[in-house]
Amino acid sequence: MYIPTFDDVKAAHERVRPHIHRTPVLTSSYLNELTGADLFFKCENFQKAGAFKVRGASNAVFGLSDEEARNGVATHSSGNHALSLSYAAGRRGIPCHVVMPRTAPQAKKDAVRGYGGIITECEPSTSSREEVFARVQAETGANFVHPYNDPRVIAGQGTCSRELMEQTDGLDAVVAPIGGGGMVSGTCLTLSSIAPETAIYAAEPDQADDAARSFRAGHIIADDAPVTVADGLKVPLKELTWHFVKNHVTDILTASEDEIVNAMILTWQRMKIVMEPSCAVPLAVILKNPEVFRGKRVGVVITGGNVDLKKLPWMQG
Amino acid sequence: MYIPTFDDVKAAHERVRPHIHRTPVLTSSYLNELTGADLFFKCENFQKAGAFKVRGASNAVFGLSDEEARNGVATHSSGNHALSLSYAAGRRGIPCHVVMPRTAPQAKKDAVRGYGGIITECEPSTSSREEVFARVQAETGANFVHPYNDPRVIAGQGTCSRELMEQTDGLDAVVAPIGGGGMVSGTCLTLSSIAPETAIYAAEPDQADDAARSFRAGHIIADDAPVTVADGLKVPLKELTWHFVKNHVTDILTASEDEIVNAMILTWQRMKIVMEPSCAVPLAVILKNPEVFRGKRVGVVITGGNVDLKKLPWMQG
Repeated sequence: MYIPTFDDVKAAHERVRPHIHRTPVLTSSYLNELTGADLFFKCENFQKAGAFKVRGASNAVFGLSDEEARNGVATHSSGNHALSLSYAAGRRGIPCHVVMPRTAPQAKKDAVRGYGGIITECEPSTSSREEVFARVQAETGANFVHPYNDPRVIAGQGTCSRELMEQTDGLDAVVAPIGGGGMVSGTCLTLSSIAPETAIYAAEPDQADDAARSFRAGHIIADDAPVTVADGLKVPLKELTWHFVKNHVTDILTASEDEIVNAMILTWQRMKIVMEPSCAVPLAVILKNPEVFRGKRVGVVITGGNVDLKKLPWMQG
Repeated sequence: MYIPTFDDVKAAHERVRPHIHRTPVLTSSYLNELTGADLFFKCENFQKAGAFKVRGASNAVFGLSDEEARNGVATHSSGNHALSLSYAAGRRGIPCHVVMPRTAPQAKKDAVRGYGGIITECEPSTSSREEVFARVQAETGANFVHPYNDPRVIAGQGTCSRELMEQTDGLDAVVAPIGGGGMVSGTCLTLSSIAPETAIYAAEPDQADDAARSFRAGHIIADDAPVTVADGLKVPLKELTWHFVKNHVTDILTASEDEIVNAMILTWQRMKIVMEPSCAVPLAVILKNPEVFRGKRVGVVITGGNVDLKKLPWMQG
């Protein structure tokens, strides 16, 4: 298992810069007053393909030699990684094979195809996904880019907190949502090198708190099919992301579904930005743990903006 | 009737600068491709109090002498002008009296009170509003700040297109929504002075097209209670805004309700910003009239972001 270094982050940044946005950092005097902290929102919802995932995906795609790139790339994902990898492969002009459950929303399939991705459907089970993916990879010879358990992807995600530190002149803490741990690992990788004094908090739904339980237990615990409105955060840690979480994360804080939805509404109303439910988990834990953040300069990673506007969580039920 | 000049805009800008944001200008490669134009979105949805109206309101409030300011300010509005005037008066520490129909949504009343506004309710009719407003003004001696038919307000709104021109290095055209005509008049005032070659288009709903009909008829036509999803655009032109529209607007283009809602969804989905239905009318007319805008550099004013997230137009029906 290769552990990426900050040199890999710097190389990734040079490599991906032409293909991504340096997203803005927004502030809100209302939310500062409400939390008693100085919050700096890194808006990856404005990122190319709508999410930070394009950083890691682009680093993987543009880091391939021409020889390696010839057969394209492949992944299994029904979310932002599928979009981002399709986008990056399209920019390089190579095929991107995506294995998705046939039950995935039509809108997601359309979006992947919109970026040029080639979809192979599987049944909605782990065994089917693995079988179909193995077949696709064998048939195409494509380079596998895992959504997060890949050093190239983690080094790419590390470019986000590097920009955040440049844009804010330093922070006491950074809070990012945690699912598989790609963004959190990239944040650990970068901050442990350039700002080791900055605390790193991961934010997770109560109802998908496998990372928090892993953190306390000292080994990976994976949940089977957790249910949460923060649908980007259902996947488990893997060995590479666990390495960073275990060694560099200050704490993992959790919030209830109601707290997440309320934080999401608050952000939309006050900051006028469209973001996914997953991105509301950091604000939810900041509001829930004022003693941890009060008086501090806190970076908050808004990870993505690809939300189904016709199925907003406050509309259901 | 005093017609404000560009010197008034410059004075307004100095006066309001400490109280407003210089809002960002966003671009979208997707929307550029879709329209064939280079679009520059001036994001007043990120403005203080959530809308451009704070420019004119702040100019009026901070332009008062201490003597004039002593009794506060007053207006009738159930929308963004009420919020903005309350915000500006609060910053100066003077009372703001707002006459609102008792039938206005509770959320709007709460928002005005949240900014310190003092509400007096009237019946939902013009006669009651005028009667109650006259009483409030007589009792308080407050300075009346009309939502748009006021030279101080128009000069304040003119600061928006001044920033837009600075931020874009020039434009072939600017498109802004038109209701009472405050934003469009401010745009005319500024551009006729600093960029007379830039075309000015006003965008209006088909179902509230009184400004378009006025423009063609050569005199003000006011509709009685038009119905449109673009609820900020229901009010009629008045003599001062008519002066600017008549003399400086290139054309007034209209769009259907469906076209407006579709442009709104498109903007939320692609630009990840929360904005009011009124702000979608410019993009709707640009999409509808590609021959007018293709190949041009076009400024688009996103006027505000105060939308009820629980009543989004694509949720109704």
